[in-house]
Amino acid sequence: MSGEERDRAGGGAVRRVPGVGVDWVEVPVREVRGDEVSERGDAVVVEEPLEVRVAAGGERRTLAVTMRTPGADPELAAGFLYGEGLVRDLALIAGIECFTEQVAPSEWAGEEELSVSRDVVEVELAARRLPALRSLERHFFTSSACGVCGRAALDEMLVAGCEPVAPGPVFARETIRSLPDALRAGQRAFEATGGLHAAALFDAEGRCLAVWEDVGRHNAFDKLVGRALLDGALGPERTLGQHAVLVSGRASFELLQKCVAAGVPMLCAVSAPSSLAVEMARRFHITLVAFLRGDRFNVYSAPERVGL
Amino acid sequence: MSGEERDRAGGGAVRRVPGVGVDWVEVPVREVRGDEVSERGDAVVVEEPLEVRVAAGGERRTLAVTMRTPGADPELAAGFLYGEGLVRDLALIAGIECFTEQVAPSEWAGEEELSVSRDVVEVELAARRLPALRSLERHFFTSSACGVCGRAALDEMLVAGCEPVAPGPVFARETIRSLPDALRAGQRAFEATGGLHAAALFDAEGRCLAVWEDVGRHNAFDKLVGRALLDGALGPERTLGQHAVLVSGRASFELLQKCVAAGVPMLCAVSAPSSLAVEMARRFHITLVAFLRGDRFNVYSAPERVGL
Repeated sequence: MSGEERDRAGGGAVRRVPGVGVDWVEVPVREVRGDEVSERGDAVVVEEPLEVRVAAGGERRTLAVTMRTPGADPELAAGFLYGEGLVRDLALIAGIECFTEQVAPSEWAGEEELSVSRDVVEVELAARRLPALRSLERHFFTSSACGVCGRAALDEMLVAGCEPVAPGPVFARETIRSLPDALRAGQRAFEATGGLHAAALFDAEGRCLAVWEDVGRHNAFDKLVGRALLDGALGPERTLGQHAVLVSGRASFELLQKCVAAGVPMLCAVSAPSSLAVEMARRFHITLVAFLRGDRFNVYSAPERVGL
Repeated sequence: MSGEERDRAGGGAVRRVPGVGVDWVEVPVREVRGDEVSERGDAVVVEEPLEVRVAAGGERRTLAVTMRTPGADPELAAGFLYGEGLVRDLALIAGIECFTEQVAPSEWAGEEELSVSRDVVEVELAARRLPALRSLERHFFTSSACGVCGRAALDEMLVAGCEPVAPGPVFARETIRSLPDALRAGQRAFEATGGLHAAALFDAEGRCLAVWEDVGRHNAFDKLVGRALLDGALGPERTLGQHAVLVSGRASFELLQKCVAAGVPMLCAVSAPSSLAVEMARRFHITLVAFLRGDRFNVYSAPERVGL
């Protein structure tokens, strides 16, 4: 790791490295349209790996290496740790630092001397030592960000005493219909690249409070949750229980899992839900709205939150 | 595991359990359309976890637990093992069996006596013993199906001597434009549920040879590759080097990785590519076509395979 790239943040502060955080890059492209062929530049969304680490008492440990769109690594890490149940309180975060590290060739069985740099986000916990190794491993076997082992995770959440989300507000039909336009208006990088997932947070009046984008839908959701945690809007006494979240694509199991964790009472999706998403929404009393397009939508669970 | 559900297959045969393989289920839904509200049934795509195991010489080992749409678990497992480099030759597979297993409550920290069943696909290797544990773990750290650690994996592929794909055929412009309609025509479950990813295999004349669907785009691609391996169309002496693959959504890094592994010279996507996908396509000389819609498409790399 190069010294000048490393910039430790303390006391809950978040520091970023200049230059890290480019959402898209321009690449040359040959466009074929009807009989015409032209050469031009095309904005392409950045997809790069990020290593997520936790540190405490001088120890550090890699939790995951995930493909993501740069630009909100502290939010992504905070939301990831929140979703995994490792950090449910901002007071547990002493600082977050983002830096770039050289991956030693010996780490991967290469024979040539290649130097590969990798973005790292390290969350310093306000604890004397790291949580038990075994507990960390269990987490990533049963509920990784890529939705590993959904069924067992669902039943485990029930057994672990995860509560159904609170009743929360009623969302007017017209409010729900207005969400996709508001999401699209906030999608900065999608406008440029035409290819990015998004998750947006709304209040019961349909005001768009935040839009987060990423190549991965689960990452966009984690960024949303992470920012809420870092802002103090989410914590041991506070949930996102007065809000709705809209995601750009389909509603899969893992997104419902994140709603349960943050207490979000309504999840809306532009596209279809999966069977496990519907089952989870019902079990945890989340209003699942899908196929939200034009003047129509479907309600798969807890319809009493939809004003008709 | 219940005895009657278990049905061991040998000698390369694939056996499935009756009842495993439902693509979608019907759930009740409240549809809001303009001022009208109606109750009806809605077909929802099935998303369920699958445990992928390898076995040899009486030992067995879990490689991954992935969320997937049932119906093609042998194909999914074979394609997954192919992509990870563990099985690149059908002769290495002695049999594949699919069954349902009870997950013991003690496996996940539950206090109540709940019984959870899980689908399992087990690939019996034609080997005296399992590959070294360490080698397996490395695989899943550097190149899991969810795209873990893309940059290092890319460089590792270069170091490991992965070759750029062979020149292969030229695809006429009209042929490329015809692929999305052919894909859609073959999407059996999408028609019903409106929400599923797909990967389709085409020859240079644009004939659609196979369409595979899944809640996960990488799974759909793995099923395609797995079927080719099981059919003997892919192996140590055979690649998919005369074919194109079309995917329903975006082109991400991991899909290019799978193209390199199977020698696919052209990847087409209906939506946008990511930066790392473009970089990988260039390095391994794969023609990457994206935004393939209506009469237009963009070519991001190796344009000489597109007949203009």
